[in-house]
Formats: sequence, C-alpha cells, structure tokens
Amino acid sequence: MSQSKSYLRLRGIYLERKSSVPLHRQLYEQLRGKILDGTLPSNTPLPATRKFSKELKVSRNTVLNAYKQLLAEGYLEANAGGYTRVTHTLPDHVLNIYPKSQNRKSLDQVPTTLRPLQLSDLGEKMSSLPYPYWDRSGGRPFSSSQPSVATFPFKTWEKCLVSSWRKINPAELSYPPVLGYGPLRQTIAEYVQDSRGVRCSAEQVVITNGTQHALTTIFGLLLNPSDQVWVENPSYNGVKIALNQVGADIVPVPVDEHGLVVSEGIQKAPSGRMVCISPSHQYPLGVTMDLTRRLELLDWAKNNDAWIIEDDYDSEYRYAGYPLEAIQGLDQAGRVIYMGTFSKVLFPALRLGYMILPPSLVEPYSATRIFTDRGTRLLEQATVNEFINEGHLGRHIRKMRTLYEERQNILVNRARIYLKNLIEIEPSEVGLHLVGWLPPGVDDRAVSDQLLDDGIYAPPLSYFSLEPLEQGGLVIGYAAVDEHEIVSAVRQMGSSLQKIL
Amino acid sequence: MSQSKSYLRLRGIYLERKSSVPLHRQLYEQLRGKILDGTLPSNTPLPATRKFSKELKVSRNTVLNAYKQLLAEGYLEANAGGYTRVTHTLPDHVLNIYPKSQNRKSLDQVPTTLRPLQLSDLGEKMSSLPYPYWDRSGGRPFSSSQPSVATFPFKTWEKCLVSSWRKINPAELSYPPVLGYGPLRQTIAEYVQDSRGVRCSAEQVVITNGTQHALTTIFGLLLNPSDQVWVENPSYNGVKIALNQVGADIVPVPVDEHGLVVSEGIQKAPSGRMVCISPSHQYPLGVTMDLTRRLELLDWAKNNDAWIIEDDYDSEYRYAGYPLEAIQGLDQAGRVIYMGTFSKVLFPALRLGYMILPPSLVEPYSATRIFTDRGTRLLEQATVNEFINEGHLGRHIRKMRTLYEERQNILVNRARIYLKNLIEIEPSEVGLHLVGWLPPGVDDRAVSDQLLDDGIYAPPLSYFSLEPLEQGGLVIGYAAVDEHEIVSAVRQMGSSLQKIL
Repeated sequence: MSQSKSYLRLRGIYLERKSSVPLHRQLYEQLRGKILDGTLPSNTPLPATRKFSKELKVSRNTVLNAYKQLLAEGYLEANAGGYTRVTHTLPDHVLNIYPKSQNRKSLDQVPTTLRPLQLSDLGEKMSSLPYPYWDRSGGRPFSSSQPSVATFPFKTWEKCLVSSWRKINPAELSYPPVLGYGPLRQTIAEYVQDSRGVRCSAEQVVITNGTQHALTTIFGLLLNPSDQVWVENPSYNGVKIALNQVGADIVPVPVDEHGLVVSEGIQKAPSGRMVCISPSHQYPLGVTMDLTRRLELLDWAKNNDAWIIEDDYDSEYRYAGYPLEAIQGLDQAGRVIYMGTFSKVLFPALRLGYMILPPSLVEPYSATRIFTDRGTRLLEQATVNEFINEGHLGRHIRKMRTLYEERQNILVNRARIYLKNLIEIEPSEVGLHLVGWLPPGVDDRAVSDQLLDDGIYAPPLSYFSLEPLEQGGLVIGYAAVDEHEIVSAVRQMGSSLQKIL
Repeated sequence: MSQSKSYLRLRGIYLERKSSVPLHRQLYEQLRGKILDGTLPSNTPLPATRKFSKELKVSRNTVLNAYKQLLAEGYLEANAGGYTRVTHTLPDHVLNIYPKSQNRKSLDQVPTTLRPLQLSDLGEKMSSLPYPYWDRSGGRPFSSSQPSVATFPFKTWEKCLVSSWRKINPAELSYPPVLGYGPLRQTIAEYVQDSRGVRCSAEQVVITNGTQHALTTIFGLLLNPSDQVWVENPSYNGVKIALNQVGADIVPVPVDEHGLVVSEGIQKAPSGRMVCISPSHQYPLGVTMDLTRRLELLDWAKNNDAWIIEDDYDSEYRYAGYPLEAIQGLDQAGRVIYMGTFSKVLFPALRLGYMILPPSLVEPYSATRIFTDRGTRLLEQATVNEFINEGHLGRHIRKMRTLYEERQNILVNRARIYLKNLIEIEPSEVGLHLVGWLPPGVDDRAVSDQLLDDGIYAPPLSYFSLEPLEQGGLVIGYAAVDEHEIVSAVRQMGSSLQKIL
C-alpha cells in the first residue's frame, strides 16, 4: 500500500486546539482508533512526520510524539526502509473488536455484555434475593438495629483517631495482623469477661469487619452444603442469607417466652451441625433465653459436637434487671462461638466486630482470613482500643443507655395513647427496638407497606420468619429516633393504622 | 434437703477481701459454680441471708446481692416457704457440664474440643494449605510487593484523615454505601481514565478491602466449581488460592517475553470461563504483555463469553518508556474486570482496593457485598479521596518513583559486582521487584531456604509456579529496602550463594 493511500484513510483526523487534551495525545488516540477499527490495516505505511505535520498544521514534534507512543505500545513498527507502518504482526481478524467510526469518546458508550449474563450458581442466588428490608428505611423512623449516630462523641473520637495514627510506627503500615490488632484483642478479651462473663484469652479474640462478615467467614469454615443448622424463628435475616450462601439446610426452630425451644430443635434435627441464636435479646422478638434452655442447648451441643453461634448484638443496652451472662461463659466443651459488634455501641460505618472462638478454631480461622482478605485494616482497631481504654466507651454507653431508655419510655407511653387497640407494645429491659403486636389475623406485611407509604419504616415480623406466624407484628427501632420524631411518628402510625385496621 | 445439709455443701466458700472483685460477686460466682457442678443440686435450700452473712463474716447486703443476681439469672428461686432454693426445674442431667471442683478461675483452663475438629471441606482445604510465603519475610530484605512505608507522608495523611472525619455528617456513620463512598468512586474513575486509559463511569467503580478480597468476592459471583480458569504460570498465589476456594479448575498457561501465550491457553482450555492476568507487569516475571497478545486475548474472551481479570497492581511505578494502556480500555465487549489497589501506592494496612466492573456486573456484585460484609468502612475511603484530590497521591507517587528507581539501580549495580555468575538480574522499567535468575539446574527453593537462614528473604520463582520451570530464580523486592540495606544484603547474598552454588 502506498503512502498516498494511507493519506486517504487518514481523512477525518480532526485535532481540537482548544481542548485540554494535548494535540499529540489527540493524534495518538485517533490513529489508534483507526488501527483498531481496521481503517488502517496491518502493514499500512504511515505518512512521514514532516509532511504529516504540515498537512495537520501542527508541529513535527506533535506527530513524532504520537508515533513514539504508538511504536512503544506496539501499534506501529519501523520498517527497513525507514518508514513507519502499522505493525505487520497485528492479527487482522482481531482488529475488528472496534466497531468502525465509533470514536471512543463518550462514557455513554460504555461496553455492555449483549449475551445473557452468566453468573455462578451462587451469584445467581445472591443477586436474585430481594434486597434486605433495611434498605427501605431511608432515614425514616423507626429503623431498627440502628444506634443514635447524632449523639456520637465526634470530638473525642477524633482525639483517639489522631493519637492512634501518631502512635502507629511505619512497620505497622504493612499488612496488618490477620486476626486483628493485638492490643485490641486483649482489650476485648477483658471487656467481654467483665461485662458478659465470657471466658477467654486474647488469643481467642478475632477481629472481623462486622457481624455479617463474621457469619460469612465462620460458616465457610465450618459448614458443608446440606449441613443442618437450627435458626431461631423468627430471626435476623443476615444469618439465613449467609447460611444460604454455603448451601446449609436451614431448620427453623420456634422461640417462646423462654427463648429457643430446644426440645423442638432436637426433635426436628437431632444431629444438626450448628445452632444460631441471639440469647440475650432475641432478634426480633426481644426474649431472653432462660437458664434451663441454655443448659439444655449446651448439653445437646456437647453431645453432638454441634456449634453454637451466640450473637450478642445489643446487650450493652440493659435498662433494668440483671443480665444473664453469655452462654459462652457456661460452655465447658468449646462449642460456642461468641459474636459481638461495635455497630451498636459505636457506629455501623466503622464495620468492626469480633468473635470469641474456641481455641481449636483460632488457627483454622486465621487461614480463612489470610486467604480471603488478609485481615482488617489497622487504624480503626487502634482507635477503638484507645477509645475503650480511656474509658470513653463506658461513658458513651452509659449516656446512650439513659437516652435510649427515655426514648423507649416515650414510645411506649405515646403508643398507649395513639395506638390503643391497634398495636400492643410492651416495654423491654434491654435493646434498641420493641415489637408492636398487631391484632390477630392482620397481615403485618400489608400494614408495614402502608406505613412505609406514610413515611414510617417498621418491618413486619413475618419478614423475619420462615414459617407462618400465629400473630403478626412490627419491629420498631427507637434508639436512632429523637424524642420529637417519636411523638409525631407514633401519631402518624395511629392515623395510618386507623385507615386500614 | 435441710438447710444444714446445704451448709455442709457450702464448705469451701472462701471470700478474698483484698481482691478487686467485689465480695458479692465472689460469692455469686462460687455459688453458681457449686450449682453448675452439681454440689448444690436442684431444690437445695440456701441458708437464710442473715445467718449466712454472719457465718461468712460479711454484710447481709453482700449475701442479698449475690442471691439477687442468682435469682435473676434463674439459678435460684424463692419457694413458698420464703426460702431461697436452687431452681427445681434445672435439669440435673445437664448440670454436670462443669467438672467438679474446677473453679473457673484460670484462663489456662480454657475449654478445648477433645474430639477431632470437624471443619467444612473448604475449611479443611484452607487450613491445610501452607501459610503464604510472604509470611516468612519478617521484615527482612527483600520482601516483594511491599512499598516503602518509612517514607509515607504521615503528617499529610493525618491532615486528610482529620479533615475527612470532620466533614462526615452523622447520617454517614450509619451503614456505608455498599459499593463504596460515592466521591471516591468518581475520583477513581477519573484517575484510571487519565493514568491507565481505562474507560468507565463512576458507577462501574466498586471499592473493596484490597485485591485478595476483590478476587474472593468476584470469583464467588462468577465461577462454579469445575469451571476452567486460565492462570499465568508462574503467577501470584493469592489468585490460585481464591480460585481453589470456589473449586475452579485451574489451567496454567505459560508466559513468554510477550506475556501470556494466548494460543496455548486456547489449546488447553478453549472454552475457559475466565483468565487471570497481570499484563502491565506480570507477577512475578515482570514481562509486559504485548499488543498482539492483548488483542488475541480480547478476541477469545469476546467469542467465548469469558471474563478477563486484569490485575494492575503496580503500574504506577514506571521509570522509563511508555506504558501500555490497560486492556480494559480496549475491551468493546464488556468482558474485562480491572483491579487496582492502594496497597502499593499508599500502604497495605489500609486494606483498600477497587475494581472497574463491566456495567452488567455492578448490580449483581452489589448483592454479593450486601450479603457478605455490607460494604467497606467509610473514613479511610473519604481520606483517600481527599488525599488524591489535593494532589498528594500524585506527589507521593512521583517521589517514590524516584526513590524506587534509585533503589533498583543500586540493586542492579551491586548485583553485577557481588552476584556475578551467581544470579543474573536485568533492570526493569516498571514495578517494585526484579527477578534474579539462577544458573540452569539449580533448585531455587533450596537457595531461597539457605538465604532465609542467612537473613535474606527472596521467594523462589518455583513457589509461584504450578509446573516445573525451565530455570529457577528468586523474586527480589527492593522498594521497601533502604539503600544501605540493599548494599549489605546483596553482599550477604553473594557470600551465601557462594557457599552453595
């Protein structure tokens, strides 16, 4: 092919002098486009730089720079005659990956897969699940399991953050310890021993990126597809989704006023591999599992080598009475995996939680983490450690306890006025949410949808249940809602419910 | 049982007045222990508080408080006669979970599982894998893929950290956006467009907790067990481990001086589902994949609906020549998943990376994240965003580029003197490590082990390979090693190698 032919093919090069993109870069991009879309096939000689630059009315350096980049990238090659040509080894059949005349300028033309998307079976399963209900709250009252973030001690946290950053030595900027920051593991060990009666050494404490992450990683380590796992019914959906991911066989076990009905679990799945519970403050029902049930469950787990996942997500917020210590503290057989989170006592965006593992699981869990995410980032771990050790966490929890108790009182009192005969709300000694029971026979999903339309977020109990419930209800999170908002939201609930009940 | 009998059983209660544990708590714990170990069986009446307190020489309140707690927890109950007794419903058969006379004091007596540990098949696989080689470095030179952390701009980072924290509004302390902090996604989109020729909108950018996490999550979304996946041979082991986790069928494809030998991949596994590559700077060999191979690979991927995982882990560090733009920028079929990390340009303990996904995968990936970890924590994302937008990242990279280039020069020059005829080291235009080739026939694992004994960490090439290599070599990371250390470490290598070669 002669050079004059390549000139013909080079019609349609337009350089924009006012653009922020340098001229040589513009020329590079347009030449590259013409090579990739087949306008300039393999072996096409390019114009000599001097002549081409005159033609384009640019400096010779502009052309030289564009050629240089294309040479370096392998689009062009210098042939023996001293000419520059399109690389002769570029396979023509692959050069049509670019539709002609599409000039790759606009981000609207982002490539998309035209054939049906092929995900893994797991990917299909996950992406076909409905989005979690919590996704609907959008800042409306009464988002459950949300702490009050507006009352967070920003200044104090900043002090701990800066001080922790300053104490970090350069070596600690390398890959973090895979099970967590040592001093924080020690602090948490002491914290759960003192406050929850958990028995552990610092070596048993592992840091996670929150409870969902803890569940996913520990299920991957312990469960095979089709393994039977007891779950409380109703219960937190994050547990069931994570169990679904590993293909476990979920066995719903009812919860009564004493907590999980262990005898029913034993009847339904005597050789279950695991049981997932929130015994201190059952989510969502709010029941505390009593001692007899706890001992029964431990006995079953011990005899069957089953694991007990004890999710202790909000027991820091106890307003009256005595807390029952964690089941972990009663375990003599090393079957309990205790989970805690900083999402409720600090804030959810922190994404920090922890597990207390039986000693036998520490080493295997460390392998899981090193091969999946190489540990949790360091700075927030150091910050939390300082925040706890300086006494700020204790102070913050005490303050929030008073605040949340007040909010619960307001909720209960207002509900007695405005929701009388519509919803039955009993006070609770612990936690961040209450259950509002609906009259028997009422569909709690329909009620919840209506409330959402009216600006109130209160997920239906049946959303958390795998089996039909005898009585419907709403989960009402009050901790993150300020007093005035509670008052007006309860009034709104009253008028919404009167429309439909 | 009479109360006097229970007195007998209560022998052996010793309250320690000098302890930091309050007396009522000591009494509570010892009574609880005696209930749990069966010394005080169900129905045993407890001594009257007044009498018991005299006996123990403590105030009556001490006894009252201990009883109250045990009553609240369900260990004791008040019977009709006004006495307090061990709860009659506690099932005696489960009360032996405590070995007698073990008083639950020492953390050395932490419970362990006696029967063999049952992990999942995946858990068994993971925990039986050898620990990653990087685990051995222990701060020795020449840890590969480590940036220089000692030269990190701590003060500037602190400013961005504090300023980002102050800009966070309370609502942002709630659960973070699951695909990442919006402004950072925008910033990264612009950054990869400008510096790597990646074509994307901010919606395609997703934030991960580093590359290992990115690999694990995307493999879970896209791969079924037994799916064939091409991997470069040799290559980064983290990729192969993550592929192992999903049970993929790993197909090693050789790398020559032009990069991945695409034709061999097509021959070995024509309908592979995925290929994992590091085309800018192949890890560990350091080759750049040339244009012809890139186009061949894209063509194959397009025709077979295969995914290309493009790991662009260190191309910010280019010391000479022109960078080839990312393969992602050539992709017209939406088959490329581009991965970047902040571990090399900032620091590993940050645990932050990103992927540029084809638009079709954004929504499914978001489901994966919401159900596995609910997104990445917020503050560091905001901090990185500010660090980039204030120009600090560009400045830091330019400084480090100069530093690393100097370090590479020193390494190469010293190697020419001290490692002559022992190791062949060629300079590279890009990256944080070089390959030192050993004489043919020499076992690189044996050499690497010897070096480790002598204080030098240089993993053997064969560690990264699934098939025997024609020539052994060592991976030598120079970026994190200061000039003096390079000089003395090369000299040490020389004398170590002379011993064994």
